Formats: sequence, C-alpha cells, structure tokens
Amino acid sequence: MALQGKKLINNPDDVVTEFIEGLVETYPGLQYLDGFPEIKVVLRADAVGGAYDKVAVISGGGSGHEPAHAGFVGPGMLTAAVSGDVFASPPVDSILAAIRAVTGTMGCLLIIKNYTGDRLNFGLAAEQAKSEGYKIEMVIVGDDCALPPPRGIAGRRGLAGTILVHKVAGAAADAGLSLADVAAEAKHASEAVGTMGVALSVCTLPGQVTSDRLGPEQIELGLGIHGEPGAAVVELQTVDVVVEHVLKQILSQETQYLPITRGSNAVLLINGLGATPVMELMIAARKAVPELQLEYGIAVDRVYTGTFMTSLDMAGLSITIMRSDENILQRLDAPTKAPAWPVGSEGNRPPAKFPVAVPPSPSMKDDEILSERQELSKQGCMLEAAIEAAAKELIDLKDNLNDWDSKVGDGDCGTTMYRGATAILEDMKTRYHLNDAAGTVNEIGSTIRKVMGGTSGILYDILCKAAYASLKQNKNITAYEWADALEASIAAVSKYGGARAGYRTMLDALIPASTVLKQSLKAGDDPVTAFIASAEAASAGAESTKQMQAKAGRSSYISPDHLVSIPDPGAMAAAAWYQAAALSVKNKLHASES
Amino acid sequence: MALQGKKLINNPDDVVTEFIEGLVETYPGLQYLDGFPEIKVVLRADAVGGAYDKVAVISGGGSGHEPAHAGFVGPGMLTAAVSGDVFASPPVDSILAAIRAVTGTMGCLLIIKNYTGDRLNFGLAAEQAKSEGYKIEMVIVGDDCALPPPRGIAGRRGLAGTILVHKVAGAAADAGLSLADVAAEAKHASEAVGTMGVALSVCTLPGQVTSDRLGPEQIELGLGIHGEPGAAVVELQTVDVVVEHVLKQILSQETQYLPITRGSNAVLLINGLGATPVMELMIAARKAVPELQLEYGIAVDRVYTGTFMTSLDMAGLSITIMRSDENILQRLDAPTKAPAWPVGSEGNRPPAKFPVAVPPSPSMKDDEILSERQELSKQGCMLEAAIEAAAKELIDLKDNLNDWDSKVGDGDCGTTMYRGATAILEDMKTRYHLNDAAGTVNEIGSTIRKVMGGTSGILYDILCKAAYASLKQNKNITAYEWADALEASIAAVSKYGGARAGYRTMLDALIPASTVLKQSLKAGDDPVTAFIASAEAASAGAESTKQMQAKAGRSSYISPDHLVSIPDPGAMAAAAWYQAAALSVKNKLHASES
Repeated sequence: MALQGKKLINNPDDVVTEFIEGLVETYPGLQYLDGFPEIKVVLRADAVGGAYDKVAVISGGGSGHEPAHAGFVGPGMLTAAVSGDVFASPPVDSILAAIRAVTGTMGCLLIIKNYTGDRLNFGLAAEQAKSEGYKIEMVIVGDDCALPPPRGIAGRRGLAGTILVHKVAGAAADAGLSLADVAAEAKHASEAVGTMGVALSVCTLPGQVTSDRLGPEQIELGLGIHGEPGAAVVELQTVDVVVEHVLKQILSQETQYLPITRGSNAVLLINGLGATPVMELMIAARKAVPELQLEYGIAVDRVYTGTFMTSLDMAGLSITIMRSDENILQRLDAPTKAPAWPVGSEGNRPPAKFPVAVPPSPSMKDDEILSERQELSKQGCMLEAAIEAAAKELIDLKDNLNDWDSKVGDGDCGTTMYRGATAILEDMKTRYHLNDAAGTVNEIGSTIRKVMGGTSGILYDILCKAAYASLKQNKNITAYEWADALEASIAAVSKYGGARAGYRTMLDALIPASTVLKQSLKAGDDPVTAFIASAEAASAGAESTKQMQAKAGRSSYISPDHLVSIPDPGAMAAAAWYQAAALSVKNKLHASES
Repeated sequence: MALQGKKLINNPDDVVTEFIEGLVETYPGLQYLDGFPEIKVVLRADAVGGAYDKVAVISGGGSGHEPAHAGFVGPGMLTAAVSGDVFASPPVDSILAAIRAVTGTMGCLLIIKNYTGDRLNFGLAAEQAKSEGYKIEMVIVGDDCALPPPRGIAGRRGLAGTILVHKVAGAAADAGLSLADVAAEAKHASEAVGTMGVALSVCTLPGQVTSDRLGPEQIELGLGIHGEPGAAVVELQTVDVVVEHVLKQILSQETQYLPITRGSNAVLLINGLGATPVMELMIAARKAVPELQLEYGIAVDRVYTGTFMTSLDMAGLSITIMRSDENILQRLDAPTKAPAWPVGSEGNRPPAKFPVAVPPSPSMKDDEILSERQELSKQGCMLEAAIEAAAKELIDLKDNLNDWDSKVGDGDCGTTMYRGATAILEDMKTRYHLNDAAGTVNEIGSTIRKVMGGTSGILYDILCKAAYASLKQNKNITAYEWADALEASIAAVSKYGGARAGYRTMLDALIPASTVLKQSLKAGDDPVTAFIASAEAASAGAESTKQMQAKAGRSSYISPDHLVSIPDPGAMAAAAWYQAAALSVKNKLHASES
C-alpha cells in the first residue's frame, strides 16, 4: 500500500523557502537573505551588516530536520543557519553568503554534522572565506552510537547531539570568547556526546510515496535522519525496553564512544523525530533518567525533552547523552532567544524528584459518623421533615419519571432520583447535623454525588454546594437566607451546566420557584405562604416544559415533535421534591401550632 | 486496514501518569501531587504550600492534548494544571486538590475549555472550594468557529485559543492583579478568540485501533480535539487553499464569532495537532499572515507557531485568531517560564518582513575577463608551462584513469579529470593572471568547481583555495612558499574530506610528495631537484595504493580482493599532474639556462 505522503504543503519544491518565510513571520528576531531559491540562509536580524562584534556561530545542512537548524538562530546560540534542499547539503555560495553576512572581526565558527556533502561544501566555503580574509574554524559533530566504529572516513553520523554543541558554542561566543576558545569548547562538547535513534515510521519526502519497508508491528533501531534504514528492525516493544536498549548501546563499553563512566555527570536529550507526540517523549524521559542514575551510576544534571532535530514526519525519537561539567552546564544554562531551544530545563535538578503531598481537606466531616444524636431544634425538626417528604416524593415518582424519560431521554431519570433519595434517607439517620442547616445541605450534596452518576448527580451536588456556601455565611437562617441560597444555587447550576430558563431542564422548575419566593417574601407574605406559592410556580414551570424545545442534555438530540406534551423529567422531579418540602413545612408548622 | 496504533508507550492505562513523571524530570520548576492514579496535578514547585501571594491560575481537562495543559505551568502562566485520563475530564477531588495546593489569599481563577464534563467537574470543585473559604472564579473558553452557532448549551468547543487565554490570565495574575481583574481579563480574552482545525489523520487512543474513517486523499475540516469527526471531509488540498478556507470560516460575517473587522489588530496562533512537522506549520504561517493582512485588512501583531494543544498523534493543525489590543499584547509578551509557551514571538513585528540583501563577494575576479594579456614574468612563464603540462598529462591519461576506476569505482575518474584539465587550458588563455601565482591557483579552483561535479571537484577546489590562502600571505613566492602551500592544501583536504595517509585517496600521492619536498628543501637541495624528488615520491605513493584497503569514496564499498593490484585512480591522477608539472619546470629552467 504505497501512498503519496499526506502533507500540508504547496509545491514540494518550495517547502524549504516557504518554511523559512513562515519562520521569519513567526519570529521578529530572525531574517533571511534575499537569495531564494539557491541561497537559503536564516540569520539574526540584529547581526546583519558585518559589524557583529562576537564570534559568529553558523550551522546548517540539508533541510527536513526542522526546527534544526534555523530554529536555533538567536542571541546566545547560532548567528546564522544555512539550509540546503530537503536532505541535501547547501551549496558553497549559500554558505559563503552566510559567512559574509554575519562574520565580523572576531571570526566565525562553522558547526556541521558529519556527512560528506556538508564537510565538503562547508569546507570549501571555509577555505574560500579564509582566502577572503575571514577567520574561520570548523567543528564536525559525529555523535551516532548505533553502528560499530567505522573502518573508513564515512565515520559516525551527526545527529541530535549537534544541538547541544550549538548551544555550548553559542553561549561561549555570546560570552565574548575568542574564535579559538569557542572552537575548543565546541570540539570538547562534540567529543563528549553520543546519540542513537529509534523509528516507528519511515519519513516521507515532500511529493513522494511513503516507503512501506517498516511493517505495522516493527520499529527500526539506530536510524539516521535522512530516511536511510536503521541498523536493525525489531518487533515493537514497550518504550521502557526501547530506552534500556538505546542507553546500553550509547554507553557500550565495547565501542567506548562516550567518555562516561560510573560516577560521571551527564545531560540527557530526548528528541522527537517529527511526528512524535510530546506525551511519548516525556514517557521516554521518565524511564531514561532513573535508568541512567540507578543502572549506570550517572548523575543526570539536565533533561531536555522535545522536538529539536527531526527527519521530516518520522515517528520515533532519539536519545542523546553528553558528559557534563561545570563549564558545559554554564553554557547550556546561559540564556538564549533561539526559539527552538527548550525553556525551563536550566538550573540544578533536585537530587530526586518526589511528588508533593496532597493537601488535606480542611473539613473531614464527609467521613465522620455522628457519634450520638443531638436533640433537634425546631428548625432541625422542620428540615428533617422537609428532607424526608422530598425524598419520599421522589421515591414515589420513580416510575413516572422513568416513563417520561424513556420518551425524551435514556429512561433512567426516575431510577437515578430514586437512588439519590434513598441514600439521603439513609444518610440522614447517621450523618446529617440537622440543626446545622447549611452543613446538612452540604452533606446532601455529598450523598447525592456518592450514589448518583452522570450529569444530574453532579448538577445536584453543585446545587447543594452553592446553597451551602450561601447559607453558611449566616448565623441565623430564615426564609430570606433560604431564598438567597436558592438563587445562588440556580446561578451555579446555570453557570456550570450552561442551561438557562426555557432550555427544558430542572431550572424551568427552580427559576420560577426562586422568583416567586423572593417576590412573595418582599411583598411581606409569611414564609410558609411564600414557600407554597413558590412551589406552585415550580409545578407550573415544570408543566410548561411540555411546550419547550430541548436545548440541553440528551433531549436536545431528539426531534421537537417527539417532545410535545411530554414534560422534562428533570424539571418534574425538581418541582416534585420542592413542593413536597413546602407542604411538609406547612404541615409541620400547623401541627406545632395546633 | 485497522492496526493498533504504534506508540512509544508502556501500559496504555499509565500514559498520563508516566507523562507527568517525565515532565517533572525534564523541568526542575515543576512538581506533581502525590495522588496517582486518581489525582494527576502538575504545579509550580515554588507555589506549593498554600502561601502563594498572587492569584493562582489553574487549568486542566482531559489528557491527550500535550503539552497542554501541564506544559503551560510556570511563573507567568498557569500555577497548576489538572489532568484527567485521556480525553476524560478530571474528577472533582483532583481539581480540589489542585485548588487547595496552590491557592492563597488572593484566590484562584479556573480556566477551562467548554466541555460538559469539565464545566461540571470544575464547577463542582469551585463550589466546594468556595464553601471551604477559597475565593474562586471560573472562565470557560469556547473558541471553535467550525460549526454554526449552536441552538443549545453544548455550545462552542474549547480549542487551542485557550492557550492564549491562559497566557493573558497568567501574566495578569503575575502582575499582582486582584482575582476579579484577572478573571475579567481572561473573560475579555476568551471573547476575542476563535479557532478552527484541519486534520490529515485520525488520532489513535493508546492501546486502541486506528480508525480508518479518513481516506488516503482526504482531510477533515473543523475537527475537535478528541477524535470526534470533523464538520466536513474534503479532498487533500494545498496548504494555501486550506489556510484560506479556515481563515474565511473563522472570520465569517455570518457567524460573527470574532469581534474583528477590517482595521482590527490580531495575533495568530498556528497549532500542530500532535504529529505535524514544524516545517508544515511554518508553511501555514507563511500563508496566513499576508492573507490576514492583505485580504482582510487585519494587522497581525504576533505570530505563534508550534505545537501547543494536540489531539494525541493527529496530523494536522488549527489556526487561532485573537483580537489584540495594547493590554493583551503586554500580557502575551510578558516573560514566563512555562516550558511550552513559545519563545521569540514577543515584541513588535516589522510592518512587513523583507529579506535582507546578500552581501557582495569581496572579489569579483571570478567573472572578470582579462582585458589584455600582460607580459609574463619568468615566474609566470614557468607557472604557465607547469599548468599546461599538468593538464595535458591528465588529458592523455583519461582512458587509463577510467579503466582503473571502472574496476574500483564508478568509472568516470578519467572523464572528470579530462573535463577539468580541458577547462583549465581554456580559462588559462583568458582568465588567469599568471604573474600572480596565488591568484592563479585560486582561479584554477574556480575553474575546476565550475566543470567538475562530485566529490573530486569540490576536493580539488578546497585544495586550490587552501593553497591560495597560504600563498597570498607572501609577496615573493619561492619553492619554500610552494611547499607550505602544498602542506596547507593537504591539511584542508584531509580535514574536510576526512581521509588520511593510507586511505587509498589522492592524499596517498600528495602526502609523500609534500613530505619529501619539505625534507629536500630543508636538506639544502635546489628547488628543481627537490620538486623532482617530490614528484617521484608522489608516483611511488600512488603505486603503493595497489596494496591498500579503501577507506573512503566508492571503493570502500568494494571487497579488498577486488582492489589488489589496481591503483587508486585519484592518487594516480594526482601523481601524474604533479610529476608533469615538476618535469616541465625542470625543462623550462634548463631551456632558459641553455
């Protein structure tokens, strides 16, 4: 199944120049040389003009490794980057143009990856520039650890470790060091770094067909970054196994590629190859750090996890280890404005990362069981009666609610309410401090959330929590405080649930109830009269949902025709418990008065 | 063809906690709460302990959107991020733990994306926290512009625009503003932002099979970030067409989602959805900026291009536009240590990005034609004779060189050398200032690179450029300066080409020649004697390559058995032109002496 790779591009021949144009649109500090399509050079906008007074650090190579190298141009890192076409070394004239554009009297360090094309083109440009009077040094990075030591000069490939060399050199240059010293630091860094990659997919060149050489269950170990096959193809493994293998190879005592032994310090770079989600890169970092520390006795000073040196759209990652010392850490930590250099990895890591304790809940009441029953106040008795009546009403209404809900929803409204009501009656016996109205409302919310799943459970808990927050501000709770609490509850449910009046939800019962309760109390009605009037408004509101189009919940997916004459079960439930509570308060007061 | 998605993970159930562990390994400034697996909260290591003296800004939601939201935790942005499982809202207790961990007396702003689960869970946590005495505000972001205005409350989805709201709120909080003011700025920002996405692939949940709903030539427009299908499926287009379409939809006069009109200012965010190479994102940015400025008359103040809010491993991107004003720009530009916030986009952009001129070459000699022939000096005559002899020797040797090369390489060594030699003879007539030895050597390099492709052309140009740089330091050029120049040339070829003595390359002729030349001159031999002795060493060296294993070039891929008794053609060519030059100098001197 060979398909032309899907890409968000225009003409495949223009990907590099269009990338550069987008890059400079994004970063005001970057600029490019007017030499498209041959000359593709990105440089610091503030280093143009030949008056640059520090050592210029230039890198580059074939394109397809974005953000490398142009994304690392900025104060404190590269002064310019020279791009070739995809996976092709840039031509000499392009490199020369870059050197001429940014090199001042302090000279220029070229840092390249070890590929013949780059060595020769950058080499020739260096010699030409020297003959023009520029001071030039070159450092070649070959950090690949995937293959045994080469017999010939093809040598070890340059991979993502080059980014760390860029940073060391860029910081050294920024510190004002001489060309010889900057080059020496870059060379030292290049000799202390090793990299190996693993690929889940083969990269696709723009406009070309994707290779099917990698099976659906296979991965490649020891890949290059130009689509060349890896050193070995193996079955897909867990990332932990892959990381163990890669670290073993990089730190192999046989090749001795890295001057790192037990007791050494090192920095770690986990690099995505283009299409690897940051989630997977971080999971690899999570394994690599303790593996290095515990298995190899290497102290990990810094961890850089991200997408730095890619192979177009390849899925996979590479791991880089660089031996660190105080000077290298200072260079790596030095500030830079290069856009693709990772932020937030600088500074010493704690010796081990432990999680911090979860702060305790300020109230442990939820888990308390009442030790002994207090004598109930008059208010407490009334609250008990109201809760009991409301809960029993919902229990009685179970089948009706389910019936309505089966026509407009998923048919479980009654069962859900029944579950909540039953649990409330149970918890009331042992857990509710009924003399504390605010606390009781809070507890009711917790009971509901414990047993009622789904949206209705959480909405009723929000309702209770908001009422509790409102009520507990007051020492004495009268009808006015209850009215305020109802209003606050409705506001919270509306805010978080998103419904308003007329949306065919429980608010169509509660909003009229709240309005009438406030009006009635304001008009001077006694609390019971106001509560009863309010309950009637709730019932009328619930009935009115028969004519409403659904705008929330599952009913909103149902044709309006099916909804006509069926009330919203949530609204009916709300009106029912509200009215039952009102009637019980009225009866309780009459009973106590008589 | 449904395959379980390839991922670098361990147990699919552990991806979120393992991501968080890797994240805190990478960033010393981040920490997490010890409540795995239920409580998955990342917070600023310096804000732990409840003594935080600014407004805490908390975000969160389902996982699978990395680096969002945990990657945006840091001074100047989020104080904490609460993660749910993949694409699932976090539970209330987890959100509460985050609030309790970082909220001080200034209070806490919750910023969430508009999804029912997040609204309810964060809503309930907010109400619970309020009831515990915390000051809490919440802002809900619904920036999706893909669909027509919703009838109900499901509303517009929260997408990548949320990141910009985080930044505005985080900077406002960092500036010491009150909770009300921070919330007001966040709300203002949320009302000024719109987003739309386009997908090339469907995301794969960890451990699950990849959906095949998207054909190989199809893309989805107006997708969500949870794997839900997009608003429309269309044929793959160029990215320019895609960007035009998306911008049109976001800025639609019909929906009027954004308060942006001609003359407005805006910021642009191009967001990768998880598996999109930065190259493609930049190409989209390149189109979007001028499109906004020229087609819509919108001044683009800032451009953020990168991977911020993903949908696991989805390939594709989203575009976000936020109306900007001075205050919003100040908030967006404010420094932050949040690792995933883009660096380098801050500060005013030039009104238009123009490329800068390529610096001119300091020497225009390459294109000059000698106007009239100068009288040649004695040195000039000798140089002319040497060049002519060397070139003619290579022309004569063409078939031999091709023959050897056909046995150990690709068979074109003779032809390539012939091409170079012929061009040198041609250019010598019109372009070389033969009285200027250094300049002539430089010109020879240019001639060679013009006509000789491949590695040998560039290596000979490097050789000439290095010799030129060495020679031109001297006013009088004697045999000693020529010897130094040869040494410098060999060093350059070795450095950039990577070969050393014994690698079976032209250096196996030139290194013995250089060594003998220096020795002979040092021993007091006259220059001609030294040159001849040196030439004999070159020939002997070239012959010795018959016994060498190849370590460079194409020959290194050939079995050593095939190489025995065949000399390296490059070494033979070098010895031949060198010897011809030496003999011509000897003859010229004898002729002039006689």
